[in-house]
Amino acid sequence: MSVLLDHPTQALSEYVGHASVSADSAFDEGVSGARGFAQARLEELGFATDLIETPIHPVLLATRGDPSWPKLVIYGHYDVQPPDPLDLWSSDPFSAVEREGRLYGRGAADNKGPQIVHMSALRRVLKRNPNLPLHITYLIEGEEEIGSPSFRGFLETHKERLQGDMLLVSDTGSPGPDQLVVTTGLRGLTALEVKVRGPRQDLHSGVHGGALMNPLQALMRACSHLHDADGKVAVPGFYDAVRPPEPWEREELSKLPTSEDEYAQFLGIPTFHSPPGYSPLEAIRFCPTLEFNGVGGGYQGEGSKTVIPSEAFAKITCRLVPDQSSQEIARMVRDAIVRSCPPSVQVEVEVKGGGDPYVVIPPGKPGSSGEESDLTKKAFPLVEECVRKSFGSNPLFLREGGSIPIIRDLKEVAGLDALMLGLFTNEDNLHAPDESFHLGIMNDAIDAFEEFFEKLA
Amino acid sequence: MSVLLDHPTQALSEYVGHASVSADSAFDEGVSGARGFAQARLEELGFATDLIETPIHPVLLATRGDPSWPKLVIYGHYDVQPPDPLDLWSSDPFSAVEREGRLYGRGAADNKGPQIVHMSALRRVLKRNPNLPLHITYLIEGEEEIGSPSFRGFLETHKERLQGDMLLVSDTGSPGPDQLVVTTGLRGLTALEVKVRGPRQDLHSGVHGGALMNPLQALMRACSHLHDADGKVAVPGFYDAVRPPEPWEREELSKLPTSEDEYAQFLGIPTFHSPPGYSPLEAIRFCPTLEFNGVGGGYQGEGSKTVIPSEAFAKITCRLVPDQSSQEIARMVRDAIVRSCPPSVQVEVEVKGGGDPYVVIPPGKPGSSGEESDLTKKAFPLVEECVRKSFGSNPLFLREGGSIPIIRDLKEVAGLDALMLGLFTNEDNLHAPDESFHLGIMNDAIDAFEEFFEKLA
Repeated sequence: MSVLLDHPTQALSEYVGHASVSADSAFDEGVSGARGFAQARLEELGFATDLIETPIHPVLLATRGDPSWPKLVIYGHYDVQPPDPLDLWSSDPFSAVEREGRLYGRGAADNKGPQIVHMSALRRVLKRNPNLPLHITYLIEGEEEIGSPSFRGFLETHKERLQGDMLLVSDTGSPGPDQLVVTTGLRGLTALEVKVRGPRQDLHSGVHGGALMNPLQALMRACSHLHDADGKVAVPGFYDAVRPPEPWEREELSKLPTSEDEYAQFLGIPTFHSPPGYSPLEAIRFCPTLEFNGVGGGYQGEGSKTVIPSEAFAKITCRLVPDQSSQEIARMVRDAIVRSCPPSVQVEVEVKGGGDPYVVIPPGKPGSSGEESDLTKKAFPLVEECVRKSFGSNPLFLREGGSIPIIRDLKEVAGLDALMLGLFTNEDNLHAPDESFHLGIMNDAIDAFEEFFEKLA
Repeated sequence: MSVLLDHPTQALSEYVGHASVSADSAFDEGVSGARGFAQARLEELGFATDLIETPIHPVLLATRGDPSWPKLVIYGHYDVQPPDPLDLWSSDPFSAVEREGRLYGRGAADNKGPQIVHMSALRRVLKRNPNLPLHITYLIEGEEEIGSPSFRGFLETHKERLQGDMLLVSDTGSPGPDQLVVTTGLRGLTALEVKVRGPRQDLHSGVHGGALMNPLQALMRACSHLHDADGKVAVPGFYDAVRPPEPWEREELSKLPTSEDEYAQFLGIPTFHSPPGYSPLEAIRFCPTLEFNGVGGGYQGEGSKTVIPSEAFAKITCRLVPDQSSQEIARMVRDAIVRSCPPSVQVEVEVKGGGDPYVVIPPGKPGSSGEESDLTKKAFPLVEECVRKSFGSNPLFLREGGSIPIIRDLKEVAGLDALMLGLFTNEDNLHAPDESFHLGIMNDAIDAFEEFFEKLA
């Protein structure tokens, strides 16, 4: 009997077709559609599935195998980023289209494609050997793109179901099909939303201009105090807990087949702007940031409208590195903003959640603890071998700049070390228009994971 | 025969129904509808009308009377501000609704209601005396709310048709029906739009954050350098040409029946923020400003989206006082912004036009030139008398904070002094949701102008 996972491209196309934007309740139907899709695939693979309610979007939890076998936990997320700006997409973000060896659509790379890789590899292995002696727990959440606000609570309540020997994740990046990366660290995240309120409603800037503080002016002044001119964050205490990278991490990074010129060209920027002492490629992995993801207030349309707006907002996220604490940084940033706002406006800073940074030193690398589980000790060299066979070169072991806060949570609550093999690339346009997934990587990775699952058991 | 102007409220309702938003080409039909409405009314009054093409919206020019008679020019504008934010309106902005003695709708007060006042008063006078010996030229433009970009060119080309003895305008404010104001000065205006461009497209703030300058960060830093903390504009040279107000102007202002507490309550702000040495009520008339009318960039929707945006913008207008020059101030502000932007982003500052400030010292007031036309010398005391009779109190002679740049242009090109009687009030919500026009003021003002036109002739 053929199942959908025997046709990975088709499976991924269907998965992308469920518009699972977790940030916007207008997409609730797509969110539940994507969840149902993942659940159906796991049931086809013989998993017992369960939907665990959360305050926002339920977690899909699924299990197969005997509890006495080595225990692997696999993480993924069925939600995606919002698709806007829509006018910059070459095709409908939620109708997957194949062009030049890539499948285009929101979520194709982040994180639906990599999930299809794992599931398709498992399909091949389990088809041959339905009794593969590996206990697998699937954990697929629906709030990753909004900072996983319900995940920690879910974890505390259900941690006994997540006990295991290792965590497998493919929600990180690699330079390309010729060079894969095993991710050894993820930045933490803290998200804040600032609202500045001035007059009770928008005012004519001629009739009233000069009497009062413009909320946009107050907001921009407060935000401008959050950085130094040289690229560092100027929030007091922000860098206090930062631990510099290990020397071997900088050395491993130097093997990356990416030059700074190529990187600048890819980004389309005139010059870099990284903190003193760090190259741009180092900064995105080893340095914390404070970024403005969205700022708005007043007239947004064509032409001009001479108003003093009633309010203004800024959406801010910080990326954090060891040993910064998400909660402490949120407090520091909030305090800095409140301090910088004049009494002539009202300011409100809402902390929207986040997660602490995470680093795993692979067994055998300088600095590893030696206390890893047997499964972890087996998995790291095994993934190196499987990647070399399928892709033709050894993977590099590198931290990356993105955040998957729940990796850290799973380590803390369930004691799981994470093996993270990166399957998407810069060219995949994550979180941007024309997101896509490289089908060559997809097929080679299915081969690699087929061997990996077979030999890990 | 009854004409529409015999029923002023109905006439105003119909005028408001034409959604004449000049800033947005989506409203082109409403713009031409409003123009046609005004043209039809003037033709009913016996005017010969003419539509003069401009690069954007045509000017309506109309004339009646013998060229040997005293010549009055009346100015108005048939365009209105954009209606957004739409969700804050209690009723459709373009379906006029009467509630508690007010007519609600976009443009009801700015400037359609005051035009209906003049036209209805003329209707009464001309009905009785079709040969009223007053030559009247009507000039109604359609680009006032976007800064009258075509007006100066129009004026240079058609100035021979605008020669006259005085200009009459009702596009200014008064405290309320118990206290009218003759406006003796208007602030100038200069508008700029700033665009800051960073990476070629929106980027994932985790994957790339730390390598490059965020365009929102660069924009906010540059904008935050445009003001001091004490409420003054920090652009070098900004105040160099500012002339302080005459002592009688401050004295006249002190007679205003508005307390600062009432004003703060009306605005709904915790404290004022006016420049040192000026009360809030002085600052809005005598001080120049730099206001952010709209700022945007990055994710604007619900929830969060972890991007580094590709670009960011700020819409800025400055209000100017004598003897600041719109062009010079635009250059200073543009230079200050460009200087503050780092080389890691591209910045573009577009000057969107504006106009110089205007002051008229009424004949007989300290400082007047004595060189005014006979019609002007007759009109200022006459308007005082007519207002006293209809409204029960003398008008005050005050500058106001808004801008009608073309008043200054008409003085320069056609030599016309302006008599400006304010007919709208703060409660009319100009440029804001729930704009309305006070029907009591409308009716009393029609009485006052009926006597004014009759006696002026």
